[in-house]
Amino acid sequence: MNRYENMTVDELRSELSCIHSKLSEFSAKGLNLDLTRGKPGNDQLAISEEMLGVISSSEDCVCENGTDCRNYGVLDGIPEAKRLFSELLEIPERFLIVEGNSSLNIMFDTVARAMLFGVYGGKKPWGQQGEIKFLCPSPGYDRHFAICEAMGIKMIPVDMTPDGPDMDAVERLVSSDSSIKGIWCVPKFSNPEGYTYSDETVERFARLKPAADDFRIFWDNAYAVHEIYDEKVELLDIFKTCEKYGTEDSVFYFASTSKISFPGSGVAIMAASENNLIQIKPILSAQTIGFDKINQMRHVKYFKDAAGVHAHMKRHADIIRPRFEAVIGAFRRELQGIATWTEPKGGYFVNLTVPDGCAKRVFRLAADSGVTLTKAGASFPYGNDPCDRHLRIAPTYPSFEDLVAAVDILCLCVKAAALEKMLAD
Amino acid sequence: MNRYENMTVDELRSELSCIHSKLSEFSAKGLNLDLTRGKPGNDQLAISEEMLGVISSSEDCVCENGTDCRNYGVLDGIPEAKRLFSELLEIPERFLIVEGNSSLNIMFDTVARAMLFGVYGGKKPWGQQGEIKFLCPSPGYDRHFAICEAMGIKMIPVDMTPDGPDMDAVERLVSSDSSIKGIWCVPKFSNPEGYTYSDETVERFARLKPAADDFRIFWDNAYAVHEIYDEKVELLDIFKTCEKYGTEDSVFYFASTSKISFPGSGVAIMAASENNLIQIKPILSAQTIGFDKINQMRHVKYFKDAAGVHAHMKRHADIIRPRFEAVIGAFRRELQGIATWTEPKGGYFVNLTVPDGCAKRVFRLAADSGVTLTKAGASFPYGNDPCDRHLRIAPTYPSFEDLVAAVDILCLCVKAAALEKMLAD
Repeated sequence: MNRYENMTVDELRSELSCIHSKLSEFSAKGLNLDLTRGKPGNDQLAISEEMLGVISSSEDCVCENGTDCRNYGVLDGIPEAKRLFSELLEIPERFLIVEGNSSLNIMFDTVARAMLFGVYGGKKPWGQQGEIKFLCPSPGYDRHFAICEAMGIKMIPVDMTPDGPDMDAVERLVSSDSSIKGIWCVPKFSNPEGYTYSDETVERFARLKPAADDFRIFWDNAYAVHEIYDEKVELLDIFKTCEKYGTEDSVFYFASTSKISFPGSGVAIMAASENNLIQIKPILSAQTIGFDKINQMRHVKYFKDAAGVHAHMKRHADIIRPRFEAVIGAFRRELQGIATWTEPKGGYFVNLTVPDGCAKRVFRLAADSGVTLTKAGASFPYGNDPCDRHLRIAPTYPSFEDLVAAVDILCLCVKAAALEKMLAD
Repeated sequence: MNRYENMTVDELRSELSCIHSKLSEFSAKGLNLDLTRGKPGNDQLAISEEMLGVISSSEDCVCENGTDCRNYGVLDGIPEAKRLFSELLEIPERFLIVEGNSSLNIMFDTVARAMLFGVYGGKKPWGQQGEIKFLCPSPGYDRHFAICEAMGIKMIPVDMTPDGPDMDAVERLVSSDSSIKGIWCVPKFSNPEGYTYSDETVERFARLKPAADDFRIFWDNAYAVHEIYDEKVELLDIFKTCEKYGTEDSVFYFASTSKISFPGSGVAIMAASENNLIQIKPILSAQTIGFDKINQMRHVKYFKDAAGVHAHMKRHADIIRPRFEAVIGAFRRELQGIATWTEPKGGYFVNLTVPDGCAKRVFRLAADSGVTLTKAGASFPYGNDPCDRHLRIAPTYPSFEDLVAAVDILCLCVKAAALEKMLAD
């Protein structure tokens, strides 16, 4: 399949020289294209515009139970927001805490709380147990890894597969090492590959027998409703699956509307078993009197129910889909046999796998040609991609024209790096 | 002055019996009056109503530097929000981080961060130094103390005076004990007494020579602009004062609009020296991508500038002032010589000092008569008022009629408890 396979060295050199000269032309243009950021584009933000004005009077701030969203109180979310998230994520309301604007913030706080106070069922705070570790399915979400790095939690990479993390490795490690306290999961449309965990993977998570009595699965369902095609991608319900094995206490679940309404001004939730919440809520109530209830109400008034969210997500999908297709189309046209890539049915990223040892070179070549990529290695713990071959592509934020231009240049860079490598070998 | 001083025992008994029978009448009425909560009343919330609708379109979300508040980014606050708080609190913009909806949350996080990561200039995280302590000027804010209690930080009470904490004690303790890592301060209209620190007190804070290299003054300026009379109550600027002595690094400063706009949906800030922020920001950036910028913009669009906030605070003052005056008027009429109380020029509370050993009894009598008070002892570390004499009165939340009714009953309860004590002695 590799179009370069049957070329002579001279032909390869001539091809590379041709690509280099094309890249020089781009370089001379001083372009400034950016494929780094998993941020919604302006056209996506625009579809939520009406939410901005949906609360305009005091009457809009009164909850169904009479609570005034404008005043202090309500630690775990207004009832109608709980109901909305419960319906949307199929999580029992009694498991839910509806919080502030950022699920990342909740995750950081959850790790910090475990470090300082421990978790339900544990004997000591994580922070008082010497070196502790997290499993990090990789490639994965750099900001998960940044939390571990900040906290001094040792990260152990575990391979990702199209079915989710390598569960043989996860089971072996978790059951044998009591210093392993957690694992980061983006179970649906994983960051950066867009993989969704198979039913078997979720079952195996639910059946885990951790050596640590204070081990937790950090289930970051960031893209729970973020399909880009009509086809719904099913993810087995983690809490219901755990219920079968009596392991609900092992899960901390996170989600947000950051990529549904407005990033930074959305509503984030945490969900956990009642045992966990009994341990968490008193600490949370020392941390805050309550989260922004008016913004919770703004979301409820605008979306109304899960159907409202799903309808809204279709509008996002209509904007995002052509962008994913443009990226994947270019890869199919240009990189067949040279690189591989994921073709996600949702989420925010495409993972591009270039020949081993080429990712940093592609990053460099792209930067020199005016295209900023997420740093090679960023989706690995400590920024260390051992094979130097993964690149995370974020198609949503640039204008469509910029995206197409950037991906064309990217394809040239991948070819150049691959050719350089072939000629060097 | 005590009207009971010259009474015979029989007269005292008869007076007490008369009060008890009045209280029984209230008890039979099944009233449900509440003086516990430092929450703005409905009429106060109403004056900010226009803020709810001040952002209604995408254009309203664009910052002066082009940042789109609807999308991810900006860790430390949008420029116009920084400018607003800088002008309002007279803090240099470079010291400011404009965050989310709750200064209490920022304070908890600041203590948690110090526990896990330490502070600028310290050698180790607080959490790795064995037992650590905070000084707690008392009576003080129960939620400050709850943070210490949750974290397992030992609290050492320090007496409050009308000029602020007993600085002789503060200086002696802080300079001699390196396990003392912090002190809680509400420097203006202190909770619950409404005292404002004198210039000398602020100077002495700025001149502190802590034994610990990682000691911090937690300067919770919760009522920075919360005068209830036209007269501005001046508080010496802590950062400027520290600058004279080169001690700016010793201060963590907090404030919010919770009692300016909407509690729970306001904007909170932290301020600290650049050295501190250099240590804090990388950790904060592991915690969140950014705070709710749309809500920051909502506040900027509504208030515009410091003058806008001050004008708004006058409207709050007009609502609150008669309530404070009703409480203090009743105390003056009924409790002269029996109890003492503070007569604050701002803030949210009146502190009532009943005869030693009587606060819990007053609480009980009030509860039995249908008036809920903040628990006796609540404003002391571990809920322990050693003299059992302080009660925190919150006049803002009940309707005016309820407030008047509740305070009348409260006065009867204080008299009853005082008489019971005189007769028992």
